[in-house]
Amino acid sequence: MSRHVPIRLGMVGGGAGAMIGNVHRIASRLDGQFELVAGALSSDPDRAAASAADAGIARSFTDFEEMARAEAGRDDGIQAVSVCTPNHLHFPVARAFLAQGIHVICDKPMTATLEEAQELAAIARSSNAMFVLTHNYSAYPMIRQARSMIARGDLGALRLVQVEYAQDWLTEDSDSKQASWRGDPAKAGAGGAIGDIGTHAFQLARFATGLRPERLAADLSSFVPGRRLDDNAHILMRYADGAKGMLWASQVAPGTENGLKLRVYGDKGGLEWQHEAPETLWFTPFGQPTQKLRRGGPGTVAGHSRVPPGHPEGYLEGFANLYSEAAEAIRTGRIPDTLPGIDDGLEGLHFIDACVRSNAADAAWVEVMA
Amino acid sequence: MSRHVPIRLGMVGGGAGAMIGNVHRIASRLDGQFELVAGALSSDPDRAAASAADAGIARSFTDFEEMARAEAGRDDGIQAVSVCTPNHLHFPVARAFLAQGIHVICDKPMTATLEEAQELAAIARSSNAMFVLTHNYSAYPMIRQARSMIARGDLGALRLVQVEYAQDWLTEDSDSKQASWRGDPAKAGAGGAIGDIGTHAFQLARFATGLRPERLAADLSSFVPGRRLDDNAHILMRYADGAKGMLWASQVAPGTENGLKLRVYGDKGGLEWQHEAPETLWFTPFGQPTQKLRRGGPGTVAGHSRVPPGHPEGYLEGFANLYSEAAEAIRTGRIPDTLPGIDDGLEGLHFIDACVRSNAADAAWVEVMA
Amino acid sequence: MSRHVPIRLGMVGGGAGAMIGNVHRIASRLDGQFELVAGALSSDPDRAAASAADAGIARSFTDFEEMARAEAGRDDGIQAVSVCTPNHLHFPVARAFLAQGIHVICDKPMTATLEEAQELAAIARSSNAMFVLTHNYSAYPMIRQARSMIARGDLGALRLVQVEYAQDWLTEDSDSKQASWRGDPAKAGAGGAIGDIGTHAFQLARFATGLRPERLAADLSSFVPGRRLDDNAHILMRYADGAKGMLWASQVAPGTENGLKLRVYGDKGGLEWQHEAPETLWFTPFGQPTQKLRRGGPGTVAGHSRVPPGHPEGYLEGFANLYSEAAEAIRTGRIPDTLPGIDDGLEGLHFIDACVRSNAADAAWVEVMA
Amino acid sequence: MSRHVPIRLGMVGGGAGAMIGNVHRIASRLDGQFELVAGALSSDPDRAAASAADAGIARSFTDFEEMARAEAGRDDGIQAVSVCTPNHLHFPVARAFLAQGIHVICDKPMTATLEEAQELAAIARSSNAMFVLTHNYSAYPMIRQARSMIARGDLGALRLVQVEYAQDWLTEDSDSKQASWRGDPAKAGAGGAIGDIGTHAFQLARFATGLRPERLAADLSSFVPGRRLDDNAHILMRYADGAKGMLWASQVAPGTENGLKLRVYGDKGGLEWQHEAPETLWFTPFGQPTQKLRRGGPGTVAGHSRVPPGHPEGYLEGFANLYSEAAEAIRTGRIPDTLPGIDDGLEGLHFIDACVRSNAADAAWVEVMA
Repeated sequence: MSRHVPIRLGMVGGGAGAMIGNVHRIASRLDGQFELVAGALSSDPDRAAASAADAGIARSFTDFEEMARAEAGRDDGIQAVSVCTPNHLHFPVARAFLAQGIHVICDKPMTATLEEAQELAAIARSSNAMFVLTHNYSAYPMIRQARSMIARGDLGALRLVQVEYAQDWLTEDSDSKQASWRGDPAKAGAGGAIGDIGTHAFQLARFATGLRPERLAADLSSFVPGRRLDDNAHILMRYADGAKGMLWASQVAPGTENGLKLRVYGDKGGLEWQHEAPETLWFTPFGQPTQKLRRGGPGTVAGHSRVPPGHPEGYLEGFANLYSEAAEAIRTGRIPDTLPGIDDGLEGLHFIDACVRSNAADAAWVEVMA
Repeated sequence: MSRHVPIRLGMVGGGAGAMIGNVHRIASRLDGQFELVAGALSSDPDRAAASAADAGIARSFTDFEEMARAEAGRDDGIQAVSVCTPNHLHFPVARAFLAQGIHVICDKPMTATLEEAQELAAIARSSNAMFVLTHNYSAYPMIRQARSMIARGDLGALRLVQVEYAQDWLTEDSDSKQASWRGDPAKAGAGGAIGDIGTHAFQLARFATGLRPERLAADLSSFVPGRRLDDNAHILMRYADGAKGMLWASQVAPGTENGLKLRVYGDKGGLEWQHEAPETLWFTPFGQPTQKLRRGGPGTVAGHSRVPPGHPEGYLEGFANLYSEAAEAIRTGRIPDTLPGIDDGLEGLHFIDACVRSNAADAAWVEVMA
Repeated sequence: MSRHVPIRLGMVGGGAGAMIGNVHRIASRLDGQFELVAGALSSDPDRAAASAADAGIARSFTDFEEMARAEAGRDDGIQAVSVCTPNHLHFPVARAFLAQGIHVICDKPMTATLEEAQELAAIARSSNAMFVLTHNYSAYPMIRQARSMIARGDLGALRLVQVEYAQDWLTEDSDSKQASWRGDPAKAGAGGAIGDIGTHAFQLARFATGLRPERLAADLSSFVPGRRLDDNAHILMRYADGAKGMLWASQVAPGTENGLKLRVYGDKGGLEWQHEAPETLWFTPFGQPTQKLRRGGPGTVAGHSRVPPGHPEGYLEGFANLYSEAAEAIRTGRIPDTLPGIDDGLEGLHFIDACVRSNAADAAWVEVMA
Repeated sequence: MSRHVPIRLGMVGGGAGAMIGNVHRIASRLDGQFELVAGALSSDPDRAAASAADAGIARSFTDFEEMARAEAGRDDGIQAVSVCTPNHLHFPVARAFLAQGIHVICDKPMTATLEEAQELAAIARSSNAMFVLTHNYSAYPMIRQARSMIARGDLGALRLVQVEYAQDWLTEDSDSKQASWRGDPAKAGAGGAIGDIGTHAFQLARFATGLRPERLAADLSSFVPGRRLDDNAHILMRYADGAKGMLWASQVAPGTENGLKLRVYGDKGGLEWQHEAPETLWFTPFGQPTQKLRRGGPGTVAGHSRVPPGHPEGYLEGFANLYSEAAEAIRTGRIPDTLPGIDDGLEGLHFIDACVRSNAADAAWVEVMA
């Protein structure tokens, strides 16, 4: 399949006003690898139609089941679908499209419950269609750089993984659309901050280091009165081979915006990366000066850059990296190991589940994959 | 004209290996407002064809004159063309398309010579088609924010404008494609660093402050042996109403990447912005704490954001802002005053010309618009 | 007592090659409030004499007990003594001088064991002499600023306290003098990193926020083979009134130097401070732009500055702030509540003890003051 | 002479309320190398006496001539004097003490006029006493590091020297004591910002690079109505061997504090240093990652550190480095080439003179040493 013919893409969720739907649309378009042709952007017929028109989508549906069937029946039907709904719909939507052999590109967390995640994993493994999970932060070029450096031993044996993701937008009670479904267990699942951003931090550490998380102890809080899910999580981590870490996820830290930060230390060196300055990776070989590694600059591996160093790339470009890798995978049938998928989704739900179990036992240690 | 039907776009120049051509393609695609359907990406037939195929362009030409005529003759011909050639072709290409009533989106500097710029200005003013100059840095949201704040008087009466643009990629002699035409007066025009990046710095200061540059004194250097155009420029500026400034443009400053920086000071406050961290604008009302203003964050004006604060937007998003403004202008016929055009291009050539005249007189003061 | 006559100071420990002894000497001298006239800088007679001569100390001793008696017997004997020995000697030295009515300025942790701390507390409370503990980080002007702002409610009700202190100098096994006693439980006490730097982080959070620590869960590690004390500590904290926090102390994080960092978040705002840029305090009133508060600059309270903003003050100046406050207290008999003393020392030992107890129970929650 | 016996120091100027007098006192005390025993801190008798008492100075004078004679006549008279007066008194005071064979440690600029500087140079050269000029910024360890690296060729042949010193405290008209004499040509000399801070920037560039300044073109401004001396200077520099530079000095740039910044670029690499983060030097060998060099850290030369990397040292420590070098020079009679002296002072006055001459000719090029 020529890379010059865009892949036909559909979308479920992501109607007008949804932040992440627009992100998926831009990311899919950025490298010219996808063409968005069908969508069920809302279950409300008027809103679905208006949103589709606004997004320039030719075929608009209100029911994702119907969309899956209809698209599967067309010669020019969609080849892949982006799932941009609230969490509780990820499972039925993904299931419906996988059942029709349509590739799924799904937002995280993969499902609302661990049971759904396990069921979806079974479905995905028996499907010919691919399942891609948009853990976009792991697609930043300098995170890829970190992963390569750690894998080749630049840090030596790993000891410490400090990861955090701090936001402030839920510092006060909010009735915004974004906030309301995230605060509703029926739509978000068992995790508040741990599901929404904790899973990103968890996956980022996992992706960059390759370390298997074994046990955790989680102290969850809901600081805002009336909030039913956690808005802050303090977590101790124990990884395979004796590495340890901390994970902090918060949505009530005033002055932070989208403060994802990863620091990894081994017996030969250390790395630091911050999302809000994503083009730089700080590398210290122990006993030598700290090096400022820059996307596309000296000392970095090639790949995933569109413009030279010093021309900032950011969030949308990182997201687009996943879409372009997905396109390549769809065209070639070969899934790169840097593309998050069903196993990452399953691990994410195990993480949420473990946090909730640990917290219920007053932050006792629990197995992550129990 | 509905904003949901993409504008048909052509491209001249920007064949495989060209940095800026790919930037224009991504920027045009990012917001879904353009569809690239025709191109003369190279004068070499094989390279033109291969580049067009690679970019998914349906109609490929090798001659831009022919392309202009052919497209103008089709019902579904292009409505606008992106000019991504070396500088010396900007003039004939823009002229050809304007003559056919096709809107032109042109890279900077506008032309290779001041005479061409003046002629193009005359052509553009009598044309029904629009001329847009991609001074992309002025489309960063926080530069727009700076412009708004200065215009409403947050800094008081302006006194100082310190602007610089430092790169290091020409520290040594280079025979890369990018370097070679930029170093050739026949293709680049009279300016080396002043044309390639000095015009950006000049326009950025002009755009943000609104100050009219009156006189300058320029000390140009060609540090690398054999280089025929300047690779460093040290310039003193005098603006209207007594404001003064410095402008430094260099391509031989090791350790800098794309170091565009603007600082503006008035009698009531100061602003600082750096391209490599473009989402932040530092604002100090005199006698009060410095404020960190962030794209989309508290204290900023709305507009030009795709994702919430803390999700980095960068170079491509800034470039895309110009394309989206151009799309809006094409659809509505109303050209916003933030969209650089023929006057900005003409000023840029006056700037280059003034630098060369001043330098020839050992950095004597000259009128910018003489 | 005139502030223009220096206070006569002695020193125990801090012989040639000791880092902290020299720091105490400079800090005592910086504001001209002390004159160092006697010392027992080493138990080795030759080294004691040479170190005293090198430091310009008139009366040199090898035995601190003898020094305490002799100085107490002179009309011009020392009025205060600095204790700069390894931890295990803090207790007997402090006891000896307090018994003679000589003020004690002691390095942290206060003692090697909790039992000693409790005994010293009893002694100090019944003594006429003062006991000052050099928790120098809490004497940085911008930490004092943070304390004031929190106390007056700028952050609202506190929710989160994230504190860390990361170093890399013990990444590999070391036989330096500095490293060897710190790694020996007989000299350092029960804490490695938690005693050496964890107590600083603990006290800094306590000092700035005023929050009482109630429970903690500590996961301690000794990553370097053969090391007998912890070189990394991951700690969850629970404070009074529902505030929670994390505390990370590490001496095996390559690329960090003296990375003490404090972040505090309440329901109305947040503060961030980093030791390696100690002159800046970042303050975000929720929903407003982040402010960059600078020592001595707009929006800050007066006090503890020697030079105007922008002239960096650092570690030695912070340390000197404690000495100058101690001098003022000695002269006036009034002990300011910003001067750390016996209660802070006792809390520090409770912290170490709690960490060890929690760690022994696999990071179970324990009472801090049990 | 033993280094353990402090050198007897006097001071002229620096009475209560003077910023720089207190800085000299702290710097002289910090390393225990000086004892301040005599002073003429003010010409007003009451203020002189009160200031001396406040500073713990035994012998107080109101007339510096009398002080010079009296101290020279005592066996325990001062060995050196610090000159902390407004600029116009530097010359007569330095002359008086040099005439008595007393070493002079003088603030900058060396004198108020070039003629005085030349006369003082002649006096100093024929004197047995030393003349030290407190260009304190060149005593920062990382500036010493830069000087070493440049001298050994780490940057290759130098091309560019960008230096700036920006403050904001004179943005508005001020009648503070600090501001008033600096704005009075009779006391400050011919230079406003160029004398007060421009000379620092000039000397810093000279010190770090070793380049001889040959010509300059200076555009001076007095932005604040009624101000008689410059408050902003935009200067183009030409150094020996074809290197070029810019120098910006401003006291009307809101949001800057004490913003001294040096950037040097050669054909093999670049260096950047900022005063407000003085412990870091950024070094880029062309084509390699930028290195973060830290005082006392890997890759740096030894010397001038009191505490390990990561424990911030600052302005007072830099100033103290000069005092300690002066002490060493006084004790040994050997003057290190890093200690600024009469030649540096003379160059500084040539710089001011050249700026004024150039500005009078509408920023024409003039010889620096004409």
